Amino acid sequence: MTDSPETTINGISAEQAAIEQQLTDTVLASFANTPDPRLKTLMQALVKHLHAFIREVRLTEAEWNAAIECLTAAGHITDDKRQEFILLSDVLGASMQTIAVNNQAVGNATEATVFGPFFTQDAPEIPLGGDIAGGAHGQPCWVEGIVTDTEGRPVPHARIEVWEADEDGFYDVQYADSRTAGRAWLTSQADGSFRFWALTPTPYPIPHDGPVGKMLEATNRSPVRASHLHFMVTAQNLRTLVTHIFVEGDPQIEIGDSVFGVKDSLIKRFDRQEPGTPAPDGRDLGNQAWARTRFDIVLAPAGT
Amino acid sequence: MTDSPETTINGISAEQAAIEQQLTDTVLASFANTPDPRLKTLMQALVKHLHAFIREVRLTEAEWNAAIECLTAAGHITDDKRQEFILLSDVLGASMQTIAVNNQAVGNATEATVFGPFFTQDAPEIPLGGDIAGGAHGQPCWVEGIVTDTEGRPVPHARIEVWEADEDGFYDVQYADSRTAGRAWLTSQADGSFRFWALTPTPYPIPHDGPVGKMLEATNRSPVRASHLHFMVTAQNLRTLVTHIFVEGDPQIEIGDSVFGVKDSLIKRFDRQEPGTPAPDGRDLGNQAWARTRFDIVLAPAGT
Repeated sequence: MTDSPETTINGISAEQAAIEQQLTDTVLASFANTPDPRLKTLMQALVKHLHAFIREVRLTEAEWNAAIECLTAAGHITDDKRQEFILLSDVLGASMQTIAVNNQAVGNATEATVFGPFFTQDAPEIPLGGDIAGGAHGQPCWVEGIVTDTEGRPVPHARIEVWEADEDGFYDVQYADSRTAGRAWLTSQADGSFRFWALTPTPYPIPHDGPVGKMLEATNRSPVRASHLHFMVTAQNLRTLVTHIFVEGDPQIEIGDSVFGVKDSLIKRFDRQEPGTPAPDGRDLGNQAWARTRFDIVLAPAGT
Repeated sequence: MTDSPETTINGISAEQAAIEQQLTDTVLASFANTPDPRLKTLMQALVKHLHAFIREVRLTEAEWNAAIECLTAAGHITDDKRQEFILLSDVLGASMQTIAVNNQAVGNATEATVFGPFFTQDAPEIPLGGDIAGGAHGQPCWVEGIVTDTEGRPVPHARIEVWEADEDGFYDVQYADSRTAGRAWLTSQADGSFRFWALTPTPYPIPHDGPVGKMLEATNRSPVRASHLHFMVTAQNLRTLVTHIFVEGDPQIEIGDSVFGVKDSLIKRFDRQEPGTPAPDGRDLGNQAWARTRFDIVLAPAGT
């Protein structure tokens, strides 16, 4: 690409590489007077990696335009109910990597996974053994377990928030009415135990009628999330746990969860119970099948 | 951060680093079946650099939230007249790095710089020596030069598009009316020469009432662009040149152009002419000062 013979790396002349590096250095230097040292670190690292990406792939102007158009479309589809930038972060594994960085492995503590966009603050409280369904359709599922710390000590009074999609693949907040269903919270007992009714989780696609869906289609990726039940568990002096449990045998685990939330330790057996099998709490389930699962929760110390 | 003593790098245990790397590898693998090989390369490189950024800075969940909010705000301020994502790319030097990658140095060819968001397709043609101002306010400025190729041969019939802000710092398209001003095109003569009247460029801020402006403020950066006059030059069998010329002595060059467009070779003398100095073409400028500059343009071969 130059008139004179010069050392080149990947077809890039030393002169050209120097021009590109100088530009990156100029941009890095422009952040030198940032008053907040953390913001300075973040902006300079962002510039370094962004420029490295552009230089490595030799981004064309048409591709740059396509990226601008994709971000613009994501911005325009985003409103108070739809968050395309979170979806984008999710399907690039950026959300999950942020979770990983902030929830480092601590002994046998239960692993964290993505929070997702469907948690709400106003879920109802249920008593021990209560039902989170609140009218949501799906197969009843008995969930029980115990909350402990990493030393194996029971954790009483832990607040256990649970939420999930119905069997049609929708969370309550995705319906036009203002229903509250498929979500609730309860507290662990003195011995750390908890139990409640939920719905057996089923797979569903993330919203894929926007630019993120377009990208998944162009890259031959499935928009479907592996079946899961969300948990957020908080207790005094312990690290808050945001996680899911997944359904052993769900074929989507093999195909690939669209937001990379699955961890082996979070895959649980959901045992199908034939119609007529007595429920643990004597509930009359009529002539329908149900399921049961167990999820023991280990909370890491706060500040880890 | 772990119970057992282990080798750590930057405080990250080997176990934790392996968890993070495995996640990145899983996300990379999810793009393995992308039919278009170029798209596959782009997506995998994006994932690699995005994850490297998150891991390197140990991005907190609050910072991830702030990034989502910033992108959301950028999306909502963007419309058919305002393009915050281009501004974001510009102030991070990503636009300029893309230009650098796609317009490699070729002998003495004139260097390229950012296109910017203010070009329009419908600028009027002016004759040789005509005025691009079209009613825009500012100090008249005589611009002349010659278009050649890298062998020094004159380039006739080159299409020279020129556009600029007025002395208040606004392009025509930034006004609510539908004026066309401060933009035009002309063609080079048989000997490659061109000449026209424009306005002496003045500095102006990029739109900074949105999230990009907020970021510039938080990082102590100036939103002001160094004074410049835009050019786009096209000619048969030669590489299209998108560039500016800058004004020697403009203090903003030292402070820093907010979009990193300045290159030494593009800084030109704009010689002030006292009121009453006869114009080169005999134009009656009344009792006002004017300026003159020279910009010789060298076009690289097409396909370089």
